[in-house]
Amino acid sequence: MDEIKIIEVKQSVFADNDHDAERLRQSLKRSKTFLLNLMSSPGSGKTSVLLALAKVFASRGIMTLDEPASIVRPSLRMRVMEADIDSSVDAQTMKDAGIETIQIHTGGMCHLDADMTRQGLEELGYKDFDLVILENVGNLVCPAEFDTGAVRNMTILSVPEGHDKPLKYPLMYETCDLLVVNKTDVLPYFDFDCEKVVEYAKLRNPFIEILFVSAKTGEGMEALADWIEKETRAWIG
Amino acid sequence: MDEIKIIEVKQSVFADNDHDAERLRQSLKRSKTFLLNLMSSPGSGKTSVLLALAKVFASRGIMTLDEPASIVRPSLRMRVMEADIDSSVDAQTMKDAGIETIQIHTGGMCHLDADMTRQGLEELGYKDFDLVILENVGNLVCPAEFDTGAVRNMTILSVPEGHDKPLKYPLMYETCDLLVVNKTDVLPYFDFDCEKVVEYAKLRNPFIEILFVSAKTGEGMEALADWIEKETRAWIG
Repeated sequence: MDEIKIIEVKQSVFADNDHDAERLRQSLKRSKTFLLNLMSSPGSGKTSVLLALAKVFASRGIMTLDEPASIVRPSLRMRVMEADIDSSVDAQTMKDAGIETIQIHTGGMCHLDADMTRQGLEELGYKDFDLVILENVGNLVCPAEFDTGAVRNMTILSVPEGHDKPLKYPLMYETCDLLVVNKTDVLPYFDFDCEKVVEYAKLRNPFIEILFVSAKTGEGMEALADWIEKETRAWIG
Repeated sequence: MDEIKIIEVKQSVFADNDHDAERLRQSLKRSKTFLLNLMSSPGSGKTSVLLALAKVFASRGIMTLDEPASIVRPSLRMRVMEADIDSSVDAQTMKDAGIETIQIHTGGMCHLDADMTRQGLEELGYKDFDLVILENVGNLVCPAEFDTGAVRNMTILSVPEGHDKPLKYPLMYETCDLLVVNKTDVLPYFDFDCEKVVEYAKLRNPFIEILFVSAKTGEGMEALADWIEKETRAWIG
């Protein structure tokens, strides 16, 4: 079992988070690094979606490992940062699947702020990578309140959670550029209305893009990889 | 559509929450009111479990409505308090099912503290009731950090969320007296290990009681009603 790098981040109480976030984004622009902030409830499938995504990316020559790039020049270099309260379950899952990951521990905090994100990115050596995906703490409320400095925000809603979530957790949908509806493979077993979820999400944010996927079967994962790759290339130029 | 009573609660920044919670519990003891704090992720089925529970309670003569008690004397009088960030979706669902409910709006806050709970209880006129169930904000992190003044804490984990949640959100399981595993009807479609969830929950809290239910099919709901009734009667004496 590979050793996981764990970063214990501390919140800077007096920081102006919006200012920190903007400064981090400028620094990401300079280093040509696209940071995607991935948020959802616990159990929506953030880690499973990342695992399925890594498979698609591998087929496109996007590197998620430190293997020597002697055979083909990687089209993009990607890393994952896992943020958890104090466990390393997800980072271990990623490592076991062969994806280079660092673990951020928030020490009980329910979200990451921009300065905590910066601490994690610096440990990661983010300037060497084109794409970093931050798996935020599983929470549909607090992470939406703190700009992490990411270039884009994405949220996952899984079918078993129900299509009413955009009505009940408005800020998450207001702040996200992309909504991924996951676990479409279990649609037959739940009263989930795909048209309603689109209607409710657009009500919160008319500009939000929406994709339907199943990390389990791979359905829709190519389209999700397309979206991330397109946004990454637009940012890094 | 019945009108829903909505209480906009405010957080008292300087309050000593533990002190407020203890004072509220003493007041609940004097009025012989059992307060159950129900917590979970968004979409675990808090509202569905409450609806299924109300059906079982109705068959036991536990009153959830303001109907005249002329025919039979109610065995217990129950009310529900719904806490949400700023929607009234759940309270409307309860009302539509004929269950008397008040709605607490937290104004963006990710949890309820003891003083916010007290404000809601006073509007409800809690002293007239034997059992009040508080449906907390859907969040597996923050609500566990704030003692609401409830007599018992209960959390729901639904099968689609996965059996690893007690490892990743330790405080929720440490603070709860009862874990209800919901959506057992979809066990065949998910990789959910019922033995592991018991092992992980007991690792966090050796005293936690665990019940398996399906609000959809009604499986296990009698046992859950038993637990709540037993705890209520023990408290109100």
